Amino acid sequence: MTRRPTIADIARAAGVSKGAVSYALNGRPGVSATTRERILAIATEMGFVPNRAARSLSVSSAQTVGIALRRPARTLGIEPFFMELISGMEATLSAGSFGLTIQIVTSQEEELEVYRRWWAERRVDGVLLCDIHVEDRRIEVVPSLGLPAVAVGGPIEGGRLAAVWHDDQEPCGEVLEYLYALGHRRVARVAGLPHLLHTTIRDAAFGAAARNVGLDSFTSIHADYTGEQGARITRRLLTSAARPTAIVYDNDVMAVAGLGVAHELGVAVPEELSIVAWDDSPLCRLTHPTLTSLTRDITAYGSRCAELLLARIGERGANPGEPAPSVQFLPAALSPRGSTGPAA
Amino acid sequence: MTRRPTIADIARAAGVSKGAVSYALNGRPGVSATTRERILAIATEMGFVPNRAARSLSVSSAQTVGIALRRPARTLGIEPFFMELISGMEATLSAGSFGLTIQIVTSQEEELEVYRRWWAERRVDGVLLCDIHVEDRRIEVVPSLGLPAVAVGGPIEGGRLAAVWHDDQEPCGEVLEYLYALGHRRVARVAGLPHLLHTTIRDAAFGAAARNVGLDSFTSIHADYTGEQGARITRRLLTSAARPTAIVYDNDVMAVAGLGVAHELGVAVPEELSIVAWDDSPLCRLTHPTLTSLTRDITAYGSRCAELLLARIGERGANPGEPAPSVQFLPAALSPRGSTGPAA
Repeated sequence: MTRRPTIADIARAAGVSKGAVSYALNGRPGVSATTRERILAIATEMGFVPNRAARSLSVSSAQTVGIALRRPARTLGIEPFFMELISGMEATLSAGSFGLTIQIVTSQEEELEVYRRWWAERRVDGVLLCDIHVEDRRIEVVPSLGLPAVAVGGPIEGGRLAAVWHDDQEPCGEVLEYLYALGHRRVARVAGLPHLLHTTIRDAAFGAAARNVGLDSFTSIHADYTGEQGARITRRLLTSAARPTAIVYDNDVMAVAGLGVAHELGVAVPEELSIVAWDDSPLCRLTHPTLTSLTRDITAYGSRCAELLLARIGERGANPGEPAPSVQFLPAALSPRGSTGPAA
Repeated sequence: MTRRPTIADIARAAGVSKGAVSYALNGRPGVSATTRERILAIATEMGFVPNRAARSLSVSSAQTVGIALRRPARTLGIEPFFMELISGMEATLSAGSFGLTIQIVTSQEEELEVYRRWWAERRVDGVLLCDIHVEDRRIEVVPSLGLPAVAVGGPIEGGRLAAVWHDDQEPCGEVLEYLYALGHRRVARVAGLPHLLHTTIRDAAFGAAARNVGLDSFTSIHADYTGEQGARITRRLLTSAARPTAIVYDNDVMAVAGLGVAHELGVAVPEELSIVAWDDSPLCRLTHPTLTSLTRDITAYGSRCAELLLARIGERGANPGEPAPSVQFLPAALSPRGSTGPAA
């Protein structure tokens, strides 16, 4: 079998750039109708196969990145984090002519099965791993498949898996210093799922910050990011003997639910209770009062993760012995709004 | 070139079912380790190519469905509707061994370009069309490409495009009768985007219901589903001379924002204002009071759309002259909660 004609061959024959050929073949704007027709005629004459399946065979690339999400459908729906993350990933991927394939899974076993199948069938060129656990089999298994991957979160020990993560020490210190300056001495935190890596990192960062700042009491209670648990724990905290004067939440859905419970119990926000949310989605500006939040640009974070994955896919086989890159993203910053004020 | 061996050939040679071969080749549970190894050995011997790209060439199927979303990233993030819809679609697709590819687009032109490219390159076997417009070029263009498609919404006139839609007359009547029975005579509605088909259908349904029920006044004001506009319009309504005693919202994000504005203005809910949301995501149960809502099972709706698309993909070429199916899904039903009560 003779070599398949490439885009470079067509560009040479047509006397245009490779970019122009790509625009013409993909039906995108960027070339005139006349040029497009001439390029397509030459491509057809040379026997170029634009069919993606054929191209996939010849260059062994699916031009697709996969993401498996292991959260129940109802949680995914209400958590703005995931859709913002996916939007950011998708923007970078489509600029690089890559598609994004999404699958919802119910267990880590099923997730690993999906990766094995995607990779065996060359349905994807790489994957983005979400919700990294403290003990996470994916950290060993995915690199051993040879499947390019980037962890959304970290840092990952061992250096086998590339990761994009952000430091939580600075924002945890910032929020507790701010609450201390407002006179708060009893602070509680409604935390995320305890087996997630970023929850344990934040546990440690908040613990250290609480000691540095000199709070009288600081308690973290783990929850599952749903409004139901956010509400239930807030109700318990607000009806306890030593009621906190400020509560910090690990996401914004739980903070909105916490504000609802304060209204329900007649606890005035911020006069009797200050509330701080994390992950500053537009939800935080829907409520009254608006929610003070730790802000991070989740869309940009998703883009950065996709960029690193595309780089890893491009480098495949280049330096397999080298440790995987660990990229630090901007830490979250405090956005004070109406839900925080001086302690009663 | 000789015919490629099929799964049926391998099943015959191995003396097992086609299902068992499929499980073994896809690395899924359902066959013992010994059987799996034997099947794989026979498949290799027969020259079976499990590579998806090769399979895609031979059976001309990408085993993938595409969805293009034309909403800004921030709106997508906060709107629980899309993630719930996608979860439902994904559940049905993955049960049928189909993947879901997602792309965010900024215009209808770009969306049509994406479909042309996906189809020309056989990246997808079919597409799910969201946010059907009153004047929508996709209704003509997509069927003319030969690309199997299902509209999420409708009904679609002309019968060229399959659709899954639900009736809005019944729920619009139900909510206005309920508010009338509570003594409300001045009702306002914060509606969705005016160029969307389902907004105009709901406009007509609410108009008819308001006349039937005999309200003194019923006004619809169009908005864009964001909390910002929901808040702004609510503020205008609540500070107007003829303040409504009840407001109905076309989604739940705007209703949550409306409740925030009522708190901000010191208007007691439900004593001085009743609030009804639409699309009953968990958001409606986070607030205090909880929001009365028109409930529909969006996850099941997404599943139904994906089911119909898989059927259309399977039938391709069967009866091209026949009109496309138009499937009616369960209408939304009223879930009364804390945000509605007797008119002052």
